[in-house]
Amino acid sequence: MDYALGIDIGGTNTVFGLVDRNGNVLAKKSIFTMSQNPVQELLDRLFFDVSVLESELNDEVKLAGIGIGVPNGNYHTGMINPNPPNLGTYWDSLDLVNTIKDYRDLPVIVTNDANAAAIGEMYFGAAKRIRDFVVITLGTGLGSGIVVNGNVLYGHDGSAGELGHIVIEKNGRMCKCGKSGCLEMYVSSKGLDLTVKEFKARYPDDTFLYNLPDKKVDGKEMDDAFDRGEERAREIYNYIGGILGIGLAQAATILSPEAFIFYGGISNAGDRLLKPALASMNENLLSQQKGKITLKLSGVPDGEAGILGATSLIWDNVRD
Amino acid sequence: MDYALGIDIGGTNTVFGLVDRNGNVLAKKSIFTMSQNPVQELLDRLFFDVSVLESELNDEVKLAGIGIGVPNGNYHTGMINPNPPNLGTYWDSLDLVNTIKDYRDLPVIVTNDANAAAIGEMYFGAAKRIRDFVVITLGTGLGSGIVVNGNVLYGHDGSAGELGHIVIEKNGRMCKCGKSGCLEMYVSSKGLDLTVKEFKARYPDDTFLYNLPDKKVDGKEMDDAFDRGEERAREIYNYIGGILGIGLAQAATILSPEAFIFYGGISNAGDRLLKPALASMNENLLSQQKGKITLKLSGVPDGEAGILGATSLIWDNVRD
Repeated sequence: MDYALGIDIGGTNTVFGLVDRNGNVLAKKSIFTMSQNPVQELLDRLFFDVSVLESELNDEVKLAGIGIGVPNGNYHTGMINPNPPNLGTYWDSLDLVNTIKDYRDLPVIVTNDANAAAIGEMYFGAAKRIRDFVVITLGTGLGSGIVVNGNVLYGHDGSAGELGHIVIEKNGRMCKCGKSGCLEMYVSSKGLDLTVKEFKARYPDDTFLYNLPDKKVDGKEMDDAFDRGEERAREIYNYIGGILGIGLAQAATILSPEAFIFYGGISNAGDRLLKPALASMNENLLSQQKGKITLKLSGVPDGEAGILGATSLIWDNVRD
Repeated sequence: MDYALGIDIGGTNTVFGLVDRNGNVLAKKSIFTMSQNPVQELLDRLFFDVSVLESELNDEVKLAGIGIGVPNGNYHTGMINPNPPNLGTYWDSLDLVNTIKDYRDLPVIVTNDANAAAIGEMYFGAAKRIRDFVVITLGTGLGSGIVVNGNVLYGHDGSAGELGHIVIEKNGRMCKCGKSGCLEMYVSSKGLDLTVKEFKARYPDDTFLYNLPDKKVDGKEMDDAFDRGEERAREIYNYIGGILGIGLAQAATILSPEAFIFYGGISNAGDRLLKPALASMNENLLSQQKGKITLKLSGVPDGEAGILGATSLIWDNVRD
């Protein structure tokens, strides 16, 4: 039976799986990316695990190809675009397609991680009957995959969809991309860390804030605090959601999508985040768009949109 | 011989013409829109003039259809989207297709004025070999027509491409759309008026500024002043160009077009405006995009992009 290998590389975790033509994930695994190390270090671990997964399947496995979603991945060139803010320097301008071919000499297709998730949602998830939508991946950073009339928007050079780097706050938080006030410096895991830090400084006597770590604030802990009525947790989600809504409105003014679909990391906060985001978005939209754009969560179980989308690229492009 | 009637409605002027399948404009005319009056007042004048133009042509004229570009025009509904910032209240939510059919019972297609200009540039102008670009119309307001992989981006409801209403200055100049700091409040005829007003207040003793009118500042006069080295004229174009560049960078971060193409009104300033805009855009782009996106002027003579694009809609959609 034919499988494709789907790889969803994130700033923190890399998920990969063997997927058949119908979108069934037959085996999958998550490992740490550790992107500060040489890329081969990750790929050695990953392809070792793939071999184990293959050997555990009953079928004889024939890999049709490898699809990869990765931050700053460029569909046109197969490379990582320069200066990726959420990956280490070894990834900078890497020829990922040919690096992968050293491990398995198969058709390899690379795209932006959020584009892969968008394709996964379109074929198997929350965007099945939607032709104009944007998938927002909330991980270490904020990625976006834009679909226009049923096709991924790549732009002339494959680097469209960097919604995480539209500027929301002039002279705001410094981003690794070199600009200030980028959306992902507020709405992402690192944005959450920075927000908690600011709130700690503002409320030095608050016990809840005091007990939060300085880095890698746990979203689940924030959600629990929100649910038990912790005022600062509510304020923090309102603040982040408010900024997210402004960013969505900017994008919608240009794209007018039917829906924004959220995937990964702090999207697990669900309505705690999306309710203030929706209110803020509608406040910042032109009147003809107000109330017409929905925010929803990924319709693909357990973070599989990325590997499903990455393997869809293989099925769409590789003949038997 | 077959013609289509192309109508390009602007906040100030309305241009219309009889165009053949090959994009030859056989007759055209410009009249004032006077959008504060009932819409029929404009259409009475326009269709009277059309009859005159038809009678003056040697050929027997058969109109195949009527294509219209108009601010807030909605391709999907044939209507004017609610609350058009640059047209009077009579236009609000108007069913334009059926209003036009009262004059000539022919196929009528309506789209946003900037989308029409984008189609005109793609078929006959500066975008002939470009598949991903944005046309920016600088008139009373700022409109944009976005082309993605050779197709106009309409969004799920036909209201995409409102680049004039992305917010550039938080708490900036109040826009009629209800938001503050919209791009078109800086980069458009009305933006120029407001900028001159601010500069007058800042430099009360400047003779050049003092002699400028308070409304409808003449772009040609600004250009002449710039060329003879008038310092304030240079400052004003640098200011407007700087803000334009920030807006272009925001859009390019999402769309990654190959070019922005400028059309109408203060785009006649050419490099006086586009040079500072290019510098500002590159300063605000992600590193992989810097230096890769060009700014250029319309490649269609004498403001004909709108009527050419509007009639292209007819040829694309109406069979003989």
